[in-house]
Amino acid sequence: MSTLEQEIHTIGRQAREAGRSLARLTADQKNAILVAMADEILTRTPEILAANTLDTSAAEKAGLTSASIDRLRLTEKRIADMAAGIRQVASLNDPVGEILRCWTRPNGIEISKIRTPIGVIGIIYESRPNVTADAAVLCLKTGNAVILRGGSEALSSNLAIAGALQAGGARAGLPDGAVQLIPTKDREAVKIMAAMNQYMDVIIPRGGHSLIETVVSSARMPVIKHYDGVCHVYVDREADLKMATAILINGKCQRPGVCNAVETLLVHRDVVDPNFSEADEASWRTEYLDLILSLRIVGSLEEAVTHIETYGSHHSDAIISANTATAEEFLAAVDSATVYWNASTRFTDGGEFGFGAEIGISTDKLHARGPMGLEELTTYKYLIRGNGQVRP
Amino acid sequence: MSTLEQEIHTIGRQAREAGRSLARLTADQKNAILVAMADEILTRTPEILAANTLDTSAAEKAGLTSASIDRLRLTEKRIADMAAGIRQVASLNDPVGEILRCWTRPNGIEISKIRTPIGVIGIIYESRPNVTADAAVLCLKTGNAVILRGGSEALSSNLAIAGALQAGGARAGLPDGAVQLIPTKDREAVKIMAAMNQYMDVIIPRGGHSLIETVVSSARMPVIKHYDGVCHVYVDREADLKMATAILINGKCQRPGVCNAVETLLVHRDVVDPNFSEADEASWRTEYLDLILSLRIVGSLEEAVTHIETYGSHHSDAIISANTATAEEFLAAVDSATVYWNASTRFTDGGEFGFGAEIGISTDKLHARGPMGLEELTTYKYLIRGNGQVRP
Repeated sequence: MSTLEQEIHTIGRQAREAGRSLARLTADQKNAILVAMADEILTRTPEILAANTLDTSAAEKAGLTSASIDRLRLTEKRIADMAAGIRQVASLNDPVGEILRCWTRPNGIEISKIRTPIGVIGIIYESRPNVTADAAVLCLKTGNAVILRGGSEALSSNLAIAGALQAGGARAGLPDGAVQLIPTKDREAVKIMAAMNQYMDVIIPRGGHSLIETVVSSARMPVIKHYDGVCHVYVDREADLKMATAILINGKCQRPGVCNAVETLLVHRDVVDPNFSEADEASWRTEYLDLILSLRIVGSLEEAVTHIETYGSHHSDAIISANTATAEEFLAAVDSATVYWNASTRFTDGGEFGFGAEIGISTDKLHARGPMGLEELTTYKYLIRGNGQVRP
Repeated sequence: MSTLEQEIHTIGRQAREAGRSLARLTADQKNAILVAMADEILTRTPEILAANTLDTSAAEKAGLTSASIDRLRLTEKRIADMAAGIRQVASLNDPVGEILRCWTRPNGIEISKIRTPIGVIGIIYESRPNVTADAAVLCLKTGNAVILRGGSEALSSNLAIAGALQAGGARAGLPDGAVQLIPTKDREAVKIMAAMNQYMDVIIPRGGHSLIETVVSSARMPVIKHYDGVCHVYVDREADLKMATAILINGKCQRPGVCNAVETLLVHRDVVDPNFSEADEASWRTEYLDLILSLRIVGSLEEAVTHIETYGSHHSDAIISANTATAEEFLAAVDSATVYWNASTRFTDGGEFGFGAEIGISTDKLHARGPMGLEELTTYKYLIRGNGQVRP
């Protein structure tokens, strides 16, 4: 076993132990830890900004795209938002222990389905350092230990944020090992984490295809993938074109570097200026994450749906139409995590959904689809209470 | 691409197409198909029994264990139960389309979370041919296409059952390719299925460790594992010993060859005959599926829980105790799919839970845990209806 493997297994073992302690904390205890974390994040704003400057300067020198640098950059406002996000999570109901269903069978046994923590969650992400805080606090709120592995370009920022969470949390009773960050840029760490199913119950990769492929091919535990967003706006022949323009500009331009930004505009041929020309097939498959918009002209709702099912990534897709029947047909036919009628795809977000912060946007269909908030970080077990029943 | 790969990919492509048709069927249409399937299963009872005799005779000649042969054997009663199970599924509510939650955000967008089919489900199982019918009808009820791969020792029985389902279903409008069985004993077929993520959304292996390991290591899509059941009964010092005996006999002897049968008896030292001696550590980890019971004597509830967490498979575990506080502590502390107080572990079963037939008992924690019925065969999507909202 390599030194790196030993280090990461030690992190895993500590997380497993911490997970058992976390499962026994009350909601009040967990919330007190969260508030202490938020306080410490604010207190350490200067240190976090200084660490972030190291990362963004290095990224600029390395020639990263403007979209990537935007995702990496922290500001006082983004740090304040991070702390506010933590407080918001503290204010949410704790889903652990919730009785999801309870029923009695004819033989008298009483079956309860109750929400429980998953155990230990591994999260692998790129670029945005605020994910370090969002992921840690959502896992903590739901009684899970977390092992974080951020992008190598954000390591300084992530270490500063994780340090604040650990120090603040520890003062309020956070078990050792409950929030850990892999402190290395070594890419091998991802494979070691993915193989460590004795210590991790699920792994959540967020990022580019090659990262996710690495995780999928090495993982010994369930994976919840966060693939890219090739999101569409379809402007129907009966669209309010002023509304369509506002939604399109919002979806494409407000923050082009994120997964719920629009990549392709589909327009009904009756409402398109004939001077526009279509993008090619490669563009239709591309998540640009930049101020580039692919166009396709379609002759019907069915063509728009077929395009989305063929080239899209089943993330977020919208129809703009004043016709209810057309819109409802689109909502039923498009098999994406979030399907919109007359609203911007930028709302596919845990915060915008009212979930508090989010772990990410799952492009998988199992366990969690779309924005992953607190409930998606829990599992359940059945409790059966009887008085001597046996199976006939 | 090998001939086998081509054949299985053709099956996959047909299943994907069928899945799109199935998603558009109404509940009534699906139920009519189910009833026609049940009728045909009954009509073809003699053929199914004849095919099953081929399988059981071969199994006896091959020297399979009595537990394996019991699982393989069909009788008129088991076939009638199979048909009755299909009718029961037809009588259940269709979960597809159910609005799981609906809320409006302060900006006026309305978010609905609705249940949808998963798409195409692959199921790999061993021995029990009734799984062919159970799995197919649960997938059909939930609008999913299914690709079945049964045990090679049950191929004749499975082909007879699948043939009845297809013929009966077709008369009532079952889309071609909705229910397919891999018609070969070639073990390579499992790996080909597991790699076919363009056509299959999830793969569910039920069976021994080596089968599941093969699937886990080849799978390109989510896996819901059905590992073995090393289930425990813990007889507390305050147990009603007569009740404990009845539950233990039921758990161990009523049908020893199934995953919810008891493998290990934990007894508090105050209520054990000192002449008994403990089993060894290897036995504590073993799923015998036979009339063999491992014993361990413990000194406290905590020791019992630690034993279960260390040696168990997190499937089904019971405490027998007259003390409510002790029992509730056990229910909270044991992290298994189903945890019992004063009832037999044999109730871990979709039918006994009231789910209708079941796909199996998931030993995974994500998406589905414990008995998998209809709801566990669905996913969801979010529909968002607005009137021009954009993200500020």
